[in-house]
Amino acid sequence: MEIKNIKGLNSLLKKIKDNTLKLGELSSEYKNRLLSGLADALSKNKSFIIRENQRDILIAKRLGLSSAFIDRLTLTERRIEQMKGSLLNLINLADPIGEVIKEWSVPSGLIIKKVRVPLGVILIIYESRPDVTSDCIGLCIKSSNAVILKGGSESLNSNLAIFRVFLETLKKLSFPSYAINFVSTKERKVLDKLLRYNEYIDLVIPRGGESLIRKITQLSRIPVIKHYKGICHIYVDEYADIEMARKVCANAKVQRPATCNAMESMLVHQSIAKEFLVPMLKEFLEAKVKIRGCAQTLKIAKDYGLFNKEFFKKATDKDYRTEYLDLILSVKVVKDMQEAIEHINEYGSHHSDAIITKDNEHAEEFLKRVDSACVYHNASTRFTDGYQFGMGAEIGISTDRLHARGPMALEELTTYKYVVKGSGQIRT
Amino acid sequence: MEIKNIKGLNSLLKKIKDNTLKLGELSSEYKNRLLSGLADALSKNKSFIIRENQRDILIAKRLGLSSAFIDRLTLTERRIEQMKGSLLNLINLADPIGEVIKEWSVPSGLIIKKVRVPLGVILIIYESRPDVTSDCIGLCIKSSNAVILKGGSESLNSNLAIFRVFLETLKKLSFPSYAINFVSTKERKVLDKLLRYNEYIDLVIPRGGESLIRKITQLSRIPVIKHYKGICHIYVDEYADIEMARKVCANAKVQRPATCNAMESMLVHQSIAKEFLVPMLKEFLEAKVKIRGCAQTLKIAKDYGLFNKEFFKKATDKDYRTEYLDLILSVKVVKDMQEAIEHINEYGSHHSDAIITKDNEHAEEFLKRVDSACVYHNASTRFTDGYQFGMGAEIGISTDRLHARGPMALEELTTYKYVVKGSGQIRT
Repeated sequence: MEIKNIKGLNSLLKKIKDNTLKLGELSSEYKNRLLSGLADALSKNKSFIIRENQRDILIAKRLGLSSAFIDRLTLTERRIEQMKGSLLNLINLADPIGEVIKEWSVPSGLIIKKVRVPLGVILIIYESRPDVTSDCIGLCIKSSNAVILKGGSESLNSNLAIFRVFLETLKKLSFPSYAINFVSTKERKVLDKLLRYNEYIDLVIPRGGESLIRKITQLSRIPVIKHYKGICHIYVDEYADIEMARKVCANAKVQRPATCNAMESMLVHQSIAKEFLVPMLKEFLEAKVKIRGCAQTLKIAKDYGLFNKEFFKKATDKDYRTEYLDLILSVKVVKDMQEAIEHINEYGSHHSDAIITKDNEHAEEFLKRVDSACVYHNASTRFTDGYQFGMGAEIGISTDRLHARGPMALEELTTYKYVVKGSGQIRT
Repeated sequence: MEIKNIKGLNSLLKKIKDNTLKLGELSSEYKNRLLSGLADALSKNKSFIIRENQRDILIAKRLGLSSAFIDRLTLTERRIEQMKGSLLNLINLADPIGEVIKEWSVPSGLIIKKVRVPLGVILIIYESRPDVTSDCIGLCIKSSNAVILKGGSESLNSNLAIFRVFLETLKKLSFPSYAINFVSTKERKVLDKLLRYNEYIDLVIPRGGESLIRKITQLSRIPVIKHYKGICHIYVDEYADIEMARKVCANAKVQRPATCNAMESMLVHQSIAKEFLVPMLKEFLEAKVKIRGCAQTLKIAKDYGLFNKEFFKKATDKDYRTEYLDLILSVKVVKDMQEAIEHINEYGSHHSDAIITKDNEHAEEFLKRVDSACVYHNASTRFTDGYQFGMGAEIGISTDRLHARGPMALEELTTYKYVVKGSGQIRT
């Protein structure tokens, strides 16, 4: 349903919640038919969606929003093809609902099954990217959850275009319209109101900037799963393959610096600092990466004629806690792996951190002791992503510890129930 | 540590949190040695603990607290033996930490492992039962979590006795004392304060009456897992084995009516109402169970000379939403299973509900459509319990949908991390 105003919100949410029980009973075949219908609808309505998107872009340009913002907002034919691909990909993934997670019997003779069931009603609050609308509807259909979408006002026309195309398609396929919902009212109070309905909404996933997420976490009486930021580290160990380290660090910083899994801080073992940093810093300079370095990093830059005031600054304590989301990197030379692990656990955001080393014992210790959602040995932190993990489009990434950690997709949108079969057992 | 006053709480909690990283590295053998040490310590200090418990009982009697309350508070030799058994039982259960939940590889060549790790710091808030102190410390040691215990003031001497005996024992075995913590200060603000530390505490589990749990849920900025109440149903189907139904319903109501998994509401198919209810109501009357019946139930009672004003009342809508925790039962004759399922989903508390039937299709539909943490076919709801499920002592029961549902024990006190191994992979 389109939520056009605040009035009647309570009874609408109750209907959405009551309707969820039906969703768990839908067959995998039917859900896949819905997804394929949505993919077709994207193709057929491509020009309508792009036209509506152009209206948002025009307004954004008039408002003087940043080019990065406008890039995230823009729907090209290629992006719509990606959205379509994401829906079709869900068809190939296993249906999580009904999966028997475990089964066992107990001395009383009872047989206990732990069975995967839908979570219920998911509220997604997001900022500029309209492709989130399509991804989240697809994920919620496949996992038999109801979804309520609340997108940013800057992408309202784009989101509404996608939502309306989807709703119409789903109705034709007899899908209950209470299962997909979009908040189109501009009343500011609607978010505060929604976040109080812990009776009818089971989970909130906010996606966007840290301040939006903090605000939602403060306001919400519904459980929230989130990540505030991604301060990801790569630690280049004394036993690193230097060539590999350079390739991985360049990728993790430069390939898409505005993503939460990009490297923000590079830690280098002192014994290989010169050998690794001289070519690495050169490469970063060529890629226009600004360096916030520790004293040793700056000394090496100076000693080898790489230093210039525009690109090098002394790193402050605050730098090590900053998610730049840009071509800026903090660099620290560390005494040993111990210091690297402690630094990551103290300054990081428990998102994604990597070690580059040929020493397996070092790798094992690092992977065990770094307390992050995703820990890597000899790979770029940029792989923390639903697709890259083979889970399909992600509904979010969590640095929380409860319920879900790391990329969240179909399984993370489920809970379980215990189904117990007996033959008249009683407690004695 | 014993938390004796509010001052310094911030830095103490930070220490507790920082210390958790070490706990994940403890070996199973060492953790089992700790548990066995605690079991021994209970035996050796039995008379000290019972003496301290007697002080609490004396105060409780002076305050005129109910006999049910005093029963929950009382530690007998037998109860201490049970606490000991519970600790020893944990030794035999598998260590959840380090378990590889899943392992797979992706087209990029990365190998991804989903590995079980501790949750971190668990805050348990509980009322009168001092055995919770022992159970929760045992569960948190085995699952490598730090615990902060906040028991009711009425059981302070008993809890402190157990805690001090445990802390001393653990210190002798070189266990870090920041891992087990007990709040002994009587300052009222301490709870409000603790519940704000979402930075250092990962999960709150409140155990006790509904009003305590609601207060904590309101105040807490830390995720809370809980159940407010257990309004458990048994539905006696038209195809029930009547003998079995009587046995199971009697057990679920009478054996321990003050537990959250006791039956509070009995639903009976109209076509077997007379045949089942006449002997069943007789049995309940003999057991002094008061009946809140629907019109048909009361009519049957009257027709068969069972009715008397002391034991029979007309059920109100409120009755069907009430957790009596006593020898009181609401009874409703329903038209069909459909009505029973809808009644349970609307009036129940999503805790534990059962169907008694010989018809497997009916059973399957009931088990699927009743939206509760535990659903039973031909067994008493009284089995919803960590021990009965083979999980060991439970740390709580959840009717929430996020993270854990139903009895919570070792596995539910864990989260996971993704451990990813590569050979220099980068994102392209």
